[in-house]
Amino acid sequence: MPVGTAATVKAMRPESVAETGAEILLGNTYHLMLRPTAERIAELGGLHRFMNWPKPILTDSGGFQVMSLAGRRKIDAEGVTFQSHIDGSRHRLTPARSIEIQHLLGSDVTMAFDECTPFPADHRTAAESMRLSMRWAADSRAAFRDRPGYALFGIVQGSVYDDLRRESAAALTGIGFDGYAIGGLAVGEGQAEMLRVLDVTAPLLPGDRPRYLMGVGKPADLVGAVRRGVDMFDCVLPTRSGRTGQALTRRGPVNVRNARHAADPRPLDPECGCPACTGYSRAYLHHLSKAEEILGPMLLTWHNLHYYQELMAGLREAIAKGELDAFAARFEAEQAAGDLPPL
Amino acid sequence: MPVGTAATVKAMRPESVAETGAEILLGNTYHLMLRPTAERIAELGGLHRFMNWPKPILTDSGGFQVMSLAGRRKIDAEGVTFQSHIDGSRHRLTPARSIEIQHLLGSDVTMAFDECTPFPADHRTAAESMRLSMRWAADSRAAFRDRPGYALFGIVQGSVYDDLRRESAAALTGIGFDGYAIGGLAVGEGQAEMLRVLDVTAPLLPGDRPRYLMGVGKPADLVGAVRRGVDMFDCVLPTRSGRTGQALTRRGPVNVRNARHAADPRPLDPECGCPACTGYSRAYLHHLSKAEEILGPMLLTWHNLHYYQELMAGLREAIAKGELDAFAARFEAEQAAGDLPPL
Repeated sequence: MPVGTAATVKAMRPESVAETGAEILLGNTYHLMLRPTAERIAELGGLHRFMNWPKPILTDSGGFQVMSLAGRRKIDAEGVTFQSHIDGSRHRLTPARSIEIQHLLGSDVTMAFDECTPFPADHRTAAESMRLSMRWAADSRAAFRDRPGYALFGIVQGSVYDDLRRESAAALTGIGFDGYAIGGLAVGEGQAEMLRVLDVTAPLLPGDRPRYLMGVGKPADLVGAVRRGVDMFDCVLPTRSGRTGQALTRRGPVNVRNARHAADPRPLDPECGCPACTGYSRAYLHHLSKAEEILGPMLLTWHNLHYYQELMAGLREAIAKGELDAFAARFEAEQAAGDLPPL
Repeated sequence: MPVGTAATVKAMRPESVAETGAEILLGNTYHLMLRPTAERIAELGGLHRFMNWPKPILTDSGGFQVMSLAGRRKIDAEGVTFQSHIDGSRHRLTPARSIEIQHLLGSDVTMAFDECTPFPADHRTAAESMRLSMRWAADSRAAFRDRPGYALFGIVQGSVYDDLRRESAAALTGIGFDGYAIGGLAVGEGQAEMLRVLDVTAPLLPGDRPRYLMGVGKPADLVGAVRRGVDMFDCVLPTRSGRTGQALTRRGPVNVRNARHAADPRPLDPECGCPACTGYSRAYLHHLSKAEEILGPMLLTWHNLHYYQELMAGLREAIAKGELDAFAARFEAEQAAGDLPPL
């Protein structure tokens, strides 16, 4: 899922996002509740109409971003009180309020309100944090207005501790959700540890419900997680990278700001069908980046989202054909080959 | 002509520029000679291929922007020596070099190298400046490699002095150009004085060659100038305004940052067919602007270019039907009516 933080996938028109193959976007409860507010968006017909995206939208619960407001938030048993990063105004999120906001936005997939356990956390801290999230998961379930076509996902926590992940998964499946997210990863534990936690956690979640790994990740993270049974992801990496000159390609990352591209007439990726690769040279993308032209982020974001969607489509196809191992081997070989050699 | 300063119409993909109806772009010799350099663009196949714009391109001569480098440029009889605003490096432009650069870029319409006379200028200063430009016009003509499908335009100078405009027009028509630009206007003289100079100058230029008013302007300037026989314009106003939240509409300018739009579900202009007006509310455009989202400039630039192209198409159609006066009267009435009243 491309991330549309403030009711826009940065530097992309929604029609262009759809052209990349994206079928669902992520919206951020924290950002939208502050500006323009969930009530305003509801008055204007909901987030889909507001941002001109008729396809599904998943909203996060606001929990992750509120927890990140170091020194500006206070957690208690019922929720979190925090100050806006925009104007310092005070706000409060609880499971019930988070679900209410997501209803106001018109989310197709609502996320339970949770605490993303900081990393590293000792076992006791991780256990307390996870159990708080499990109580909030029950509160979220109670607050959610169930109706056909709309889904509520729970979020497994438990840091890197297998017993806590098991306890969390059991708690959530006991409550019952339409899909299950795996939270508290990609927070500094490293790829190997993340994949190890997925090895333990994914099998605990029902096979007939979507599994969603939150905030992940690099292309290799996606492939590794899909191989472990994950179905869905969200990450700002393709969009954020696109605004800093970094392209993510089948041959690994390419920074177009690098002087070696200044006179290179070749496309970023000769095999890619996105507008950045079919219409422009590396030299041009380099030029846009040096000149700080808005078209630079526009084209690189498009490329990155296109590449991510193509990667996921390739994984889906490989699964359907029973060729996932071969796909992953080819993916790894291409990434390892690295960028095109200089002309 | 939308302005594509640094080989990009800011915040627009070239396909989108074409969708607005634009048939020709302006590129800036000054900017491109400094970065990425004309030689680099030539190596890469020319400006059209570099920026992925297959339709015609007009390039200015670099004169106007070089003259604007107060304290960083020195004019002599043969040309101008100046320092780059990017890195302070020294460069020189002469008529021959300006034409060479425009050839390297692959310009369809090349502009003669001239001095845009500062405003205000006394008669003597304006005369000296104009006569320098006329010598440079002859030098530009001599340097231009004439070939089918490519054009060289001369530029009338003479500030606000009728006799100097007449002398300049006579000098240029004596040399002979494929089109004639009117320079040295929209530099602070005000609309009434600009239109008065056009009343004097436009009839001096051959009726079977395009007349191009450089660096103009507001919608009312375009209508006033077309009524006086001008065919072509370039201006950064639609693109620059689009990046500061200002929309130019048939009912006058609308600043979407204004709080009165914050909850307004109506489109910017209900009669406009551009993506900004057909896909989004004023409330959303306001939100993008407050959140400083790149999509804001993208959508407003598109709207502004669309409006300018539609205005010019309307003027062409009115001329063809012999209804220019009626068109201008309707235009003025709509502009005077002002923006939609608050809900």
